[in-house]
Amino acid sequence: MEKKIITISREFGSGGRTVGHMIADRLGIPFYDKELVDQIAVESGFAPKFVEEHGEHSPGNSLFSYAFAPQGVPGVMNGLSTADFLWNIQCSVILQLAEQGPCVIVGRNADYILKDRPDALHVYVYADMAFRADRIVRRYGESDKSPEARLQEKDKRRRVNYQHYTGRTWGQAQNYDICLDTSDLGIRQCADIVCGIVENSKKPRDPSQD
Amino acid sequence: MEKKIITISREFGSGGRTVGHMIADRLGIPFYDKELVDQIAVESGFAPKFVEEHGEHSPGNSLFSYAFAPQGVPGVMNGLSTADFLWNIQCSVILQLAEQGPCVIVGRNADYILKDRPDALHVYVYADMAFRADRIVRRYGESDKSPEARLQEKDKRRRVNYQHYTGRTWGQAQNYDICLDTSDLGIRQCADIVCGIVENSKKPRDPSQD
Repeated sequence: MEKKIITISREFGSGGRTVGHMIADRLGIPFYDKELVDQIAVESGFAPKFVEEHGEHSPGNSLFSYAFAPQGVPGVMNGLSTADFLWNIQCSVILQLAEQGPCVIVGRNADYILKDRPDALHVYVYADMAFRADRIVRRYGESDKSPEARLQEKDKRRRVNYQHYTGRTWGQAQNYDICLDTSDLGIRQCADIVCGIVENSKKPRDPSQD
Repeated sequence: MEKKIITISREFGSGGRTVGHMIADRLGIPFYDKELVDQIAVESGFAPKFVEEHGEHSPGNSLFSYAFAPQGVPGVMNGLSTADFLWNIQCSVILQLAEQGPCVIVGRNADYILKDRPDALHVYVYADMAFRADRIVRRYGESDKSPEARLQEKDKRRRVNYQHYTGRTWGQAQNYDICLDTSDLGIRQCADIVCGIVENSKKPRDPSQD
């Protein structure tokens, strides 16, 4: 079946976002990353920065559970925690985007949200610690914490969020159609491999080769 | 760095062995699967069938721990359990094979045993339950147990063995350079992707693209 929707789940600093961007450019289809955050912000009433910072956080983080309901929309959260409220909107936005046509969606557990679409190709992008540490320093600069500590913190948040909302283990190969280590394969080659799969998916498959 | 050694870790029934065979044929390099079992058998004094059946088993299986020391080689196991004794020989055989030159090695935790070789490409091959169930029935026939039960039993054994000897989680993407779902991508395409990576590894890598 032709693959039209590509979801990219990625370790922070692995270059997964860049891989996704290259694929979208190459295939001439929309790329949703920040755009997704903006749309969730519009539909939820939260500020984009808040959605970006909290949408992939641990749902059990008591500092923000129930704390910051959007102004002017009383009762809109229906008793849900902020995280659950954002999750519901995130699901609905991602399902709608996939309905609109071919696209690349980065992050936000889109692999799980679109798991029942046979035209979706689910990609997981990761890299070794040294590669990721180098990239985040080049991209976001130094901070008080070591790059390794920043990566571990982010990994933990994504892992807990993913486990909570999907019941799956973050980084388990079986959740995806293909998993790619950018530190070993290089970012461009990872994009090439995914584009090749999308191109091949347009041809009929020969079942005798399975 | 040029990739010369390809290790294939695979879920039972996923077609990982076939992927490995195609790669070895295409690249014109040796393929070690049964051949590996035979060599471990020679070096251990156990029968090939015993090595095949027990080499990837749970090390805590009391039915065979210490039970069947090879005849005529008293004291050779040095107080090790049968599983630990086989593991030591397996490590030594796999390290030697990799030293001899380019090859494809299927199973036997070779990804972990060769983790420190930068010229090794570690591949994990998996597939969904329906694809695997269909393959094992076509390949090995029916049995009293359902194909799903046979797969779950085999998965569990490999998972426990891998965890025990490597300290890693079976199927965790980060253990491998690339992970491929044959039920989604097709067996031939998985072999094509790996051969492409090996070919590309011969060219110098452009670090500006990372």
